[in-house]
Amino acid sequence: MTAPFDIAPLLAPGTPAPAGKFNGFPKYNFVGGHNDAKHVPVQALIDAATAVLTREGPSLATYGLNSGPLGYKPLREFLSTKLKSHAGIECTADEILITSGSLQGLDLINTLLLAKGDTILIEQETYGGMLSRLAKFGVNIVGIPLDDDGMRMDALRAKLEELKKKGVTPKYIYTIPTVQNPTGSIMPEARRKELLALAREYKTMIFEDECYSDLIWSGERPKSLYAMANGEGVIFVGSFSKSIAPALRVGYIVAKWEILARILGLKQDAGSGALEQMILAEFCTKHFADHVPKLSKALSHKLQVLREALAEQFGTAAEFGDPPGGIYLWIKLPDVVDVPKLFTAAAAAGVALNPGPEWSTDKAYAKSRLRLCFANPEPETIRKGVEVLAEVCRREFGVPLRSANIHKR
Amino acid sequence: MTAPFDIAPLLAPGTPAPAGKFNGFPKYNFVGGHNDAKHVPVQALIDAATAVLTREGPSLATYGLNSGPLGYKPLREFLSTKLKSHAGIECTADEILITSGSLQGLDLINTLLLAKGDTILIEQETYGGMLSRLAKFGVNIVGIPLDDDGMRMDALRAKLEELKKKGVTPKYIYTIPTVQNPTGSIMPEARRKELLALAREYKTMIFEDECYSDLIWSGERPKSLYAMANGEGVIFVGSFSKSIAPALRVGYIVAKWEILARILGLKQDAGSGALEQMILAEFCTKHFADHVPKLSKALSHKLQVLREALAEQFGTAAEFGDPPGGIYLWIKLPDVVDVPKLFTAAAAAGVALNPGPEWSTDKAYAKSRLRLCFANPEPETIRKGVEVLAEVCRREFGVPLRSANIHKR
Repeated sequence: MTAPFDIAPLLAPGTPAPAGKFNGFPKYNFVGGHNDAKHVPVQALIDAATAVLTREGPSLATYGLNSGPLGYKPLREFLSTKLKSHAGIECTADEILITSGSLQGLDLINTLLLAKGDTILIEQETYGGMLSRLAKFGVNIVGIPLDDDGMRMDALRAKLEELKKKGVTPKYIYTIPTVQNPTGSIMPEARRKELLALAREYKTMIFEDECYSDLIWSGERPKSLYAMANGEGVIFVGSFSKSIAPALRVGYIVAKWEILARILGLKQDAGSGALEQMILAEFCTKHFADHVPKLSKALSHKLQVLREALAEQFGTAAEFGDPPGGIYLWIKLPDVVDVPKLFTAAAAAGVALNPGPEWSTDKAYAKSRLRLCFANPEPETIRKGVEVLAEVCRREFGVPLRSANIHKR
Repeated sequence: MTAPFDIAPLLAPGTPAPAGKFNGFPKYNFVGGHNDAKHVPVQALIDAATAVLTREGPSLATYGLNSGPLGYKPLREFLSTKLKSHAGIECTADEILITSGSLQGLDLINTLLLAKGDTILIEQETYGGMLSRLAKFGVNIVGIPLDDDGMRMDALRAKLEELKKKGVTPKYIYTIPTVQNPTGSIMPEARRKELLALAREYKTMIFEDECYSDLIWSGERPKSLYAMANGEGVIFVGSFSKSIAPALRVGYIVAKWEILARILGLKQDAGSGALEQMILAEFCTKHFADHVPKLSKALSHKLQVLREALAEQFGTAAEFGDPPGGIYLWIKLPDVVDVPKLFTAAAAAGVALNPGPEWSTDKAYAKSRLRLCFANPEPETIRKGVEVLAEVCRREFGVPLRSANIHKR
C-alpha cells in the first residue's frame, strides 16, 4: 500500500475547483445544446459509416487522413457548397478549418487575438460558455444591449466612440446574428450592413458565430456577415452539433487563408477526429438538405409546446417571444423572482434551467430572466417540467398566482 | 468588393507563424505517428459502427451520450479491464478520462500543474511534441540522460538534489518508461521502483506517458509506474492512436479521482467525439486482444526491413539498436553529419525524418542523431527511402562511404 500523495502544493495557481461526479441528467432537462433523440438519423449514419469506411478505411492509418491539418477534404467541400447556398459565403475548401466542436473554434480564435487586458465587445445577452471562456483570458468584456433585431447599433457606435477616445481598439465584436443565443433574433440585412461599416470605421474585427443558423423554421435568412464582407475583417464559426447531433464534436472556422494559416499554427492536436468527419461528410453530402427541414419541423413543434405550457402555467407572469428558430426560449419572469435562487430550488425538484445572469454581461438586468432549451425533452416532459417549475416558483416567490393558472384552464 | 482588412494589429503577442499549405505527404515518410494502412481493421470497425449505432444511436442527441463528461462509459470499462491485465493498473471506470487524443491529455495535465517559471524534469531524449508544448508554458526544462534501461537514476538523483538545494521542487518527472520515445527502451521493474522512491523523496509527481506500450513484440512488459504506486503521485496517459489508428483522436488519462476531478474542471470542450468513442469501445471489447499482436507482428517486420536497409546503405556509419517495440528507430550518424542540415536536403529529395535536436533537450548531443518512423511506409518504400537518404547524406557530408555500401552488396 502506497501512502497518499497530496497534489495540492503542485497545482498551478488559479486552477478551477474540482468537478463533481456525474449522476445522470436531471428529470426535466432544459439546459445544454442537447437535441431531439428521435431525429438522430441513425440508419443513414450507419449507411454513411459503411460506405466511407469501405471506400477509405485504410486512410485512418495516417493523421489527418490524406487531407492535411485543415480536416477531411470532402467535409470541407460539402461545407463550401452548403455555406454558399445557405449563407451566401463564397469560400474554397481551403478557407475552412474543421475543429473539434465550435468550442475549439472559439478557443482558437480567442487565443489568436486576445491578451490579458484587451477589450472585446459582445452582445449583452450571449452564449454563457463564451463569457466563461473570456473570463479566463482576463479581458475587458463590454456588453452591447439588444433589441428585437439583435445588437443595437446606436449603443455599439456610442461604445466604440467612447473606447476610441480612451485609445482603445476592441479586438473584436462577437455576435450571434442568426438565431441569437439566447434571444433567438435574426439580425436584418440593413443592420448587418451598419455593423460591418462600424467595425471598419473603428478598425476592429467581427467574430460571427452561426451555431444555430441551420435551425430556422422558414429556412430563410439574410446573408451572413462573412458573405457580405467577402470575408474581409470577419471570422466565422459554425457547427454540426445542432443540425445533426451534439455528441459529434465537429465544428468549423471560415476565414481568409492568411488568418486561417495563423489559426492552424495554434491547432496542436494532430487533427480532429477522423471517423466523425468522414461519416458526417458522407451523410451530409447525401442527406443534409433533407434532414434539416425535418428536424426543424420537430423543434418548431416543441417550441410551441413549451410556449403553450408556459402560458398555461405562468399566465402573464412569464414574458417571451416566438423565436424563428433555434432550440431555446428566453423568458422574463416578474422582478420579484431571483432566477439564480430559482435555479437551485428547481434543481432540487429535478428541473434544470440556465439562469439569465450566466447568459448576460448585465447581471442585474438578467436577474429575473432565464433560458429554457426545448430540443431534447419530449413534449410530455416539457409540459410536466414547466408545471413543476411553476410550482417551485410559486412556492419560493409567490408567482405565478394560482388564479392565473386556473383561469387559463 | 470589400477592401482588404489587415489583422496584424489585432493579433495577440507571441502568436506563432502562419502554417504552410498542405501539399500531401512526402514520398518517403519517416515522420509522424502514422501506422500500417493494411492493418486498419476496416471491416471490424464497420461492424462495430453498425452494432453500436443500431443499439444506441439516438443517444448522440445528448452531449457526452449518457456517460457524463468522463467519456463513453463502455470505453472506460474496456480500459479498466485492459489496463489491469496489461499494465497491472487497478482503477475503476471513474478514474479514467477519455480525451481527444493523448495530446489533449498532455495539455490538460500541463495546464493543471504548470505556471511560468516552474521546473520540470524530462528524459533527455523525448517526444518532440511535448518539448514544443512545454516551451509555450515558459517552464524550465531539465533533461535527464538515458541509458539502455531508460532514465538514469544517478543523474536524476543528482539533479533533484541540486534543485532541492536551490529550493526548487519540480512540478513533475515526465517519463515514457515503456517503449521510450525515441530510444525504444523499456525501463526494468527495479529502476521503476527507484524512480518512484526518488519522486516521493523529493515530493514531486510522475507523469507517465504510455502511448506506445501496446506495441511490444513479445507482448510482455513490467507493471506501469501507476500500478506500482497504486496511483499515488502518478498521472498516467495512454492512447488508441498507435494500437488502432492515429486518425482516431482518442486518448485517456488515468488518475485518482481527486486529481481527475480537477482535470475535468479544465476540460471545457463539451466532451470528446462520441462516434469515435462508441465505435472504439465496440471494436475493442471484441477484437483488441487479437488485433494488437497482429499489428505488432507487421510492425516488427517493418523494423527489421528498416534495420537491414540502414545496415546495407550506411554500413557502420549508422548506429542503432533493436527496439523491443514501437514504431520508430533512433539512429546515430557520424559526428560530421549535421542532421538539421540533412533534414533540409533530404526533404528536397522526398525523404522526411525527425532531426534529433527536436527530440532532445541537449541539442549538441542530438546533432548527429535522428528518428525514423517505420510503421507507415511499405517495405519497398522503406528500402528505397533509406537508399535516397544515404545518397543525400553522402553528397552533403561524405558519409556513408560508397565502399561500405558496395562491400555490403
